[in-house]
Amino acid sequence: MIINIPENSDFSIHNIPFGIFSTADRSPRAGVAIGEHILDLVAVAELDVFDFNTAVLEKEVLNDFISLGKTITNRVRKDIRHWLQDEDSVLAGKPELFVLQSEAQMHMPVYIGDYTDFYSSIEHATNVGTMFRDPAKALMPNWKHIPVGYHGRASSIVVSGEAIHRPKGQTLPKDSDAPVFGPSQRLDFELEMGFITGKNTSLGQSVSTDEAEDYIFGMVLLNDWSARDIQKWEYVPLGPFLAKNFASHISPWIVTLEALDPFRVSGPEQNPKVLPYLEFEGTKNYNINLEVGIAPENTEEQIVCNSNFKYMYWNMAQQLAHHTINGCNINIGDLYGSGTISGKDENSYGSMLELAWMGTKPLKMNDGSERKFIQDGDTVIMRGYAEKDGKRVGFGEVSAKVLPAK
Amino acid sequence: MIINIPENSDFSIHNIPFGIFSTADRSPRAGVAIGEHILDLVAVAELDVFDFNTAVLEKEVLNDFISLGKTITNRVRKDIRHWLQDEDSVLAGKPELFVLQSEAQMHMPVYIGDYTDFYSSIEHATNVGTMFRDPAKALMPNWKHIPVGYHGRASSIVVSGEAIHRPKGQTLPKDSDAPVFGPSQRLDFELEMGFITGKNTSLGQSVSTDEAEDYIFGMVLLNDWSARDIQKWEYVPLGPFLAKNFASHISPWIVTLEALDPFRVSGPEQNPKVLPYLEFEGTKNYNINLEVGIAPENTEEQIVCNSNFKYMYWNMAQQLAHHTINGCNINIGDLYGSGTISGKDENSYGSMLELAWMGTKPLKMNDGSERKFIQDGDTVIMRGYAEKDGKRVGFGEVSAKVLPAK
Repeated sequence: MIINIPENSDFSIHNIPFGIFSTADRSPRAGVAIGEHILDLVAVAELDVFDFNTAVLEKEVLNDFISLGKTITNRVRKDIRHWLQDEDSVLAGKPELFVLQSEAQMHMPVYIGDYTDFYSSIEHATNVGTMFRDPAKALMPNWKHIPVGYHGRASSIVVSGEAIHRPKGQTLPKDSDAPVFGPSQRLDFELEMGFITGKNTSLGQSVSTDEAEDYIFGMVLLNDWSARDIQKWEYVPLGPFLAKNFASHISPWIVTLEALDPFRVSGPEQNPKVLPYLEFEGTKNYNINLEVGIAPENTEEQIVCNSNFKYMYWNMAQQLAHHTINGCNINIGDLYGSGTISGKDENSYGSMLELAWMGTKPLKMNDGSERKFIQDGDTVIMRGYAEKDGKRVGFGEVSAKVLPAK
Repeated sequence: MIINIPENSDFSIHNIPFGIFSTADRSPRAGVAIGEHILDLVAVAELDVFDFNTAVLEKEVLNDFISLGKTITNRVRKDIRHWLQDEDSVLAGKPELFVLQSEAQMHMPVYIGDYTDFYSSIEHATNVGTMFRDPAKALMPNWKHIPVGYHGRASSIVVSGEAIHRPKGQTLPKDSDAPVFGPSQRLDFELEMGFITGKNTSLGQSVSTDEAEDYIFGMVLLNDWSARDIQKWEYVPLGPFLAKNFASHISPWIVTLEALDPFRVSGPEQNPKVLPYLEFEGTKNYNINLEVGIAPENTEEQIVCNSNFKYMYWNMAQQLAHHTINGCNINIGDLYGSGTISGKDENSYGSMLELAWMGTKPLKMNDGSERKFIQDGDTVIMRGYAEKDGKRVGFGEVSAKVLPAK
């Protein structure tokens, strides 16, 4: 191995995810995470080892690199894997190609033109339905027929590490019919994963479930923050708006769908049968362990949730097929969120709303405090990794601190 | 006058709207509509009359031009008005600066990063509430407190003239609990106007109602197509999705807020009183006449709706103040739709849903046919203009034909 990779690293030789980084003396550029390091792809390109226009590696986002297509991007990934493992490769004896992750700043990996958020965890949808409606009719009648989704705000998606201020907005006090204005009192995280598309379509074109994975470049972790009290007052009839668009955070490394291929598993049985355009062949869920930690100000982090991406009722191929069945066009760099990923167990719920069950079961923190929702000064950290036969492919983390309202 | 401007032209000397056009021998570039012509701004720039980097005029969208700021873009507009009226100006005797609109192709005027659709006409919201819920409680409790809005799809917004295919999707047949798949049977237009932002904000920043107009570059007509049957089945609880994102059309010329300034009028009284962040000073509605025509295949157009932008309950400054009160950031080129603009009279309703009252009062067409919703082969045309003291400032039209489902 050209570079030391710690055991249990998310960024093993089996991963090779792409991101955009900078350092004091390197402008934002494409890199690959390997162990505790980043391989600088612009520096690699200077070795004249790539047969594409390497100007795409010097851009501030990966969109142009991704637009080269999987034939090229997969080969880059394969070549890098090979070179890193070959002591005599072009990368050997060139420490200047590598940067410590701890010394780099990560940036948004792609420019996101459109952001869609699905609602595809049956456990999450059932929990929400149970809390707010009739437990016997927790799922809406359309839920098992449609991968329910809605459009989110692309401009306010930021990369892990960027602190945010608690949002302000209108909420309706209990037993009142006049709203009040102020900082949200029910700020929540949502544990999600997101996929990023790698090919464009034209208006009017549809992507079948068979074709869908060819349109997906890779995945990231997604913390899709929610202000539950703002949402409650605003969302009927047109859906969430200011309760969501103040910020969403993604992890900086895009793990390719190819790196996740060994971790495919079957998803939940879909009953009733879905309409033909949503039928699919093969195994299209992925076994990705997920966890959420909360670190109160000046206090150690505490894990509050262990979930898994394999719980998803609707898979990514079905989501993309549904999204485009009406001819809606997609672009390289679009982000598609899974919706909150909850499992069956109480400790696998992917939001404070569910973990503390609408505030009725506050979480006890190690420092003696309690949490119904997220407090000022809290840092929320999400991690995810897949592991099988000693091979580990992970996402690192998406982490963000909540500052008081401005 | 340097060029002949027909009486009653939308593109009078008082307008000077900006757009992107091309011809057989001119690549897409910035232009100004004047009468039946377009003034080629790249050709004007070659006369060395501008003091900014005129490369922005050669871009395929106006975003970079707009980013110069109103100090510059307003001066460009003022200079052009002056030159067009001065027989001895730099534009005199140079017919090569002008192109006939009939010989040009119009393109999307801006790249739209994010698209938000509001729901700000009280008559429209009341009509919809009356049809689908209790007429006595037609408006939702939040409606008079919040300029209700939701995020739409930016990728599928196209320019006037581009034909679209009828969307397909899931709908729920009457008295059934199993959805079926097929072409929408209830395709509808929505008569809207949209404003385009001309300044960026940072995440966490808010724009007050006082500042809002400084952030608005100009306006366009917007046909925000809807598939009512798809929407009915999908939209609870997270809002419209595939019922809307198959296409929206905008008019190609951006009429600046400065050109619309003489047409300011007071809006409807807002009662109950709005929260302080939504209060505003001055007159912030605009008197803009709107009409919708339907031209069935091989048949003459028939006007089916006469409305006015002045009916809006919530004005644009309130919409933008609300959108950013939680710190949501905005970018140059974002589009913000008004929501369907209906008036009090039955002939002022801005959608087929309302005009034909859910299909119970079909519109009689001149060719003997009836319309409950839009049929294949129909072309829907929307027009808008303001007029006062003999001065007319108009938008031209947004027009699109509906082709059968693919």
